[in-house]
Amino acid sequence: MPETTHRVTFEPDGRTVDVPRGWTLLEAAQAGGIALEAPCGGQGTCGGCRILIPDGPPEPSEAARRLLSREELEGGLRLACQVRVRARMRVVVPRETRRRDAPILTEGTGFDVPLIPNVRKRAVHVPEPSVTDQRADADRLLDALADEGLEDLTLPAPMLREVPRRLRSLDFHPAVTVVGREVVHLDRPTAADACYGLALDVGTTTLVGYLVNLATGEVAATASRANPQAAYGDDVIARIEYCGREKRGARTLQTLVVDAINEILAEACRRAHVRPSVVYEAAMVGNTTMNHLLLRLPVDAIARAPFVAASASAHSVSARGIGLKMHRRGRLYTAPLVAGFVGADTVGVILATGMHASDGLRLAIDIGTNGEIVLGTRERLLACSTAAGPALEGARIRCGMRAADGAIDRVDIEDDAVTVRTIGDAPATGLCGTGLIDAVAAMVAAGVLEPTGRMRPADEPADAAPGLARRIRTADGETSFLLAEGAGRARDVLLTQRDVREMQLAKGAIAAGVGSLLEAFGASLDDVEAVLLAGAFGNYIRPDRARAVGLLPDVPLEKIRFVGNAAGAGARMLLVNRNLRHVAADVAKGVEHVELSRRPDFQTRFADAMIFPGG
Amino acid sequence: MPETTHRVTFEPDGRTVDVPRGWTLLEAAQAGGIALEAPCGGQGTCGGCRILIPDGPPEPSEAARRLLSREELEGGLRLACQVRVRARMRVVVPRETRRRDAPILTEGTGFDVPLIPNVRKRAVHVPEPSVTDQRADADRLLDALADEGLEDLTLPAPMLREVPRRLRSLDFHPAVTVVGREVVHLDRPTAADACYGLALDVGTTTLVGYLVNLATGEVAATASRANPQAAYGDDVIARIEYCGREKRGARTLQTLVVDAINEILAEACRRAHVRPSVVYEAAMVGNTTMNHLLLRLPVDAIARAPFVAASASAHSVSARGIGLKMHRRGRLYTAPLVAGFVGADTVGVILATGMHASDGLRLAIDIGTNGEIVLGTRERLLACSTAAGPALEGARIRCGMRAADGAIDRVDIEDDAVTVRTIGDAPATGLCGTGLIDAVAAMVAAGVLEPTGRMRPADEPADAAPGLARRIRTADGETSFLLAEGAGRARDVLLTQRDVREMQLAKGAIAAGVGSLLEAFGASLDDVEAVLLAGAFGNYIRPDRARAVGLLPDVPLEKIRFVGNAAGAGARMLLVNRNLRHVAADVAKGVEHVELSRRPDFQTRFADAMIFPGG
Repeated sequence: MPETTHRVTFEPDGRTVDVPRGWTLLEAAQAGGIALEAPCGGQGTCGGCRILIPDGPPEPSEAARRLLSREELEGGLRLACQVRVRARMRVVVPRETRRRDAPILTEGTGFDVPLIPNVRKRAVHVPEPSVTDQRADADRLLDALADEGLEDLTLPAPMLREVPRRLRSLDFHPAVTVVGREVVHLDRPTAADACYGLALDVGTTTLVGYLVNLATGEVAATASRANPQAAYGDDVIARIEYCGREKRGARTLQTLVVDAINEILAEACRRAHVRPSVVYEAAMVGNTTMNHLLLRLPVDAIARAPFVAASASAHSVSARGIGLKMHRRGRLYTAPLVAGFVGADTVGVILATGMHASDGLRLAIDIGTNGEIVLGTRERLLACSTAAGPALEGARIRCGMRAADGAIDRVDIEDDAVTVRTIGDAPATGLCGTGLIDAVAAMVAAGVLEPTGRMRPADEPADAAPGLARRIRTADGETSFLLAEGAGRARDVLLTQRDVREMQLAKGAIAAGVGSLLEAFGASLDDVEAVLLAGAFGNYIRPDRARAVGLLPDVPLEKIRFVGNAAGAGARMLLVNRNLRHVAADVAKGVEHVELSRRPDFQTRFADAMIFPGG
Repeated sequence: MPETTHRVTFEPDGRTVDVPRGWTLLEAAQAGGIALEAPCGGQGTCGGCRILIPDGPPEPSEAARRLLSREELEGGLRLACQVRVRARMRVVVPRETRRRDAPILTEGTGFDVPLIPNVRKRAVHVPEPSVTDQRADADRLLDALADEGLEDLTLPAPMLREVPRRLRSLDFHPAVTVVGREVVHLDRPTAADACYGLALDVGTTTLVGYLVNLATGEVAATASRANPQAAYGDDVIARIEYCGREKRGARTLQTLVVDAINEILAEACRRAHVRPSVVYEAAMVGNTTMNHLLLRLPVDAIARAPFVAASASAHSVSARGIGLKMHRRGRLYTAPLVAGFVGADTVGVILATGMHASDGLRLAIDIGTNGEIVLGTRERLLACSTAAGPALEGARIRCGMRAADGAIDRVDIEDDAVTVRTIGDAPATGLCGTGLIDAVAAMVAAGVLEPTGRMRPADEPADAAPGLARRIRTADGETSFLLAEGAGRARDVLLTQRDVREMQLAKGAIAAGVGSLLEAFGASLDDVEAVLLAGAFGNYIRPDRARAVGLLPDVPLEKIRFVGNAAGAGARMLLVNRNLRHVAADVAKGVEHVELSRRPDFQTRFADAMIFPGG
């Protein structure tokens, strides 16, 4: 039988949402993208989520009686987390219950997403069969689960094949794992708490995985890897071309990324002392190409006009079918895409930054090999993707490296002195994206770089700090700047003219994208209440430097917020709260995709944006 | 998003049914087991299905305006086939619209099930992508299908992998095949009508397949095979024991039956000039053991008390996963089971004979290796399964054979003369189940068999026709009766004492089952309005003979109806009308299973029933 759903209408918004019978009004509100106050996460302890049910309110729950006054109860006030949807309903959300504005998630801050994972693991007592109870094993198991509140489940045939034997070997007292509506495993009852999921941010250059304890919602371990597909192309266009050129190319790239994810999974499990077989679901965000390559969907139409994906929907597929070495009946959820190059990572950024629920105008910039930019409010969201290239992730840079020990992440130039800071205070071995931005900003300020980005050769007098000339070298006709001398046998860390050009291309693409989105939205920079910078290096970058080079727009510094790996945070949210998957679907459908290549002024804007500010 | 459903209440029954949004009220009534007059099959041409919508009836359709008077329309009358469910509804079914009693389906009569198959194949025009229409390929396809009324479909990842290439090679004009809610194939638009399904009756001894054209509902070809599992045991108990004994036994039996079904499929396709790749769904009925062996579910708990199946539900599984050589993304639907040994074949018999919708008390006997018996009305249905053995299908009988050319199917004895009729008027080579019944009845009447079943030896004077003594032989201490001398080098066709005992066991088991059900129901034979005899040989048996031997109860002959392979007819109904699958689920859940082994008087009843009537 199909799942019964009921329509809930939220006033005064007039927003309607169809939810499965039995959901709470709090879950329904979340599914409808309406943010209610619920600091206790729906436990019925804080009384924050009070809502009004004008037509025949249900009997108040224990919690409601405890937390609401008699007058409030008689007036039809209830707690949204306590009322289950059993019929079509109309609900009024009082002003004080509505979250004023969705909080901006920042790395290191609390992660206040209610724990409603798509994976549930529960120990149940199943009645043993007898001559007076001849129910089939499947029915007796499903009935016992329904008694525990796990209703409308299915037992697919492959699982069913094991059920009779497992039920008996576990003395009819299994811990049952359910993913979505499917029963996937019967375990020892003592293993009821061993229930994990993996949130995945599959980037063009970097892969990050978060192993999450789904019984508590906490991150048990994280691990990351460089995307090994990079050997076949720095950016998505190069990889799509490789797939078109080589018959088994797409398969090669798929295997590479799956192997790397399996390494991440194994490492995270090792560190958290968790068996990979108790990881039941992975939730993945990634751009359209990463998504399609992983799912083995064809990518060729993505790279040529009119830039069409095979599928923009969310998918839930067999993890084993994809090659992931987690529970053998586990599932991989891939978040929905927007369009063209704007993928699920952008949807993750939107969810994590609360832009889809924000009254104020927010601008989010996710710095990766594709720079994705989102601008808007709860009413309207625009997004675009810019080919920033991997420079800001440390790739295509002569001495570039990932943000690891020994990477220069900060450069200061005062008079003739150059001071660098490295991650872990290790001897300098290279330059990460943060350091690149910092170095360029300092070099512009010191006059080593002209506003056009041209590096003055050693024999040209710089405006300031002529003593820096000794750091300027020329080899093979290319000028470069010595940031740090190699310690011992290590190489010198140089910034070359070509590096500067790569950085200019990246920041120019992003700045031009921001300009185009503002224009398309009909807003000016002054209207933006917050500029959110997402990306792996967010914690280290200095906002004044990023603004100085023009990577960030010219807004007051207090408007700039670093939100860390917001795409990854979005993946975690989707992993721990299945209701947000409905929100993600709505967000992905609702975002307007701005195709930069169609905007006649984009090339001009891009060329202008390559110049450093003040030039 | 989950499918939206609405509740429809049918008055005056008060029966409610939750149906997906968009169904017609006629479909909803069928799903609720309420039989409406609809001779045109829901085309809106006959005006038979008029129903009353008391609260805010919708605008009348064209058809309703044509077929109903202005007064009727103003009074709220509408045509059930024309009104789509878009909200919770209450509907009153007038007495004249209700089918007085569900018709009994008999072999050869019309098959008036509305054609609403689970497989749909439709040619659609999909808009080509452009810079102003960057929807993903999946979305543009699903949107185009929704425009054709095929809504809420899914495109699973394996299918999706082909969609971009297929869409382009078919110039965005595919014929799309949908099974359930899944898109499974994109075909040339000229192939839109090539859409077939296979109805399967998987019996312990015999397999029957009907290849059905799902564009018309007609049977294009039928084919049958002996169940090759019989080499490992005549009955289900023997086969379950074999699976317990041999490590790979269950796999062996599964492969055997799948191979035989594939032969049936290939033969039917060959005869109908149809490619097996356009067979998109199979719908199967079979007893619990046949169902579990085919689905590779464990069978060991079925055969020992308390006789518990692994799963009693309907399943829809990948046909290819099971081994069936039809469309590679086709599905196998297996109808739901009742309990223990009462399987989906019984559910098929109930659907085909309309017992679940009948006001009058009906008794159905499905003669097979398991004799399943059902007794009841629309209000209450009881069922049991008896271990009749394969004798009535021609097995375990010395000269037994399937009903094929050369099989004796009729035996008359007058004075000293024995006359036999064979199928196809071919020289007699054996005896089918019909002939066995006929022969035993004639031999009892002639005094060759005593009421106890003992065959009088040649030297004992028979009451009548002493000249028959020359036909009586004794070999290895066993008495036998010559039915026909072998023509040329063929063997003689004999009926042995042991054959008679097998037949007595079979009919005794069935008669005792009938008695037990009547007792459990609290009814007498006089209350039964119709005795329905199902089974492959129904067309040939003589009711007076079957009654004479006690296989059929002692009711007036006009109450006895032969309904042919009703289980197979049920499979066809479930294949051509997906709504009946909801009815089947309700029927399977609603039937009360009577466990004969628990009834203290069953063994006595069984012993009594082995005696021939009048003895």
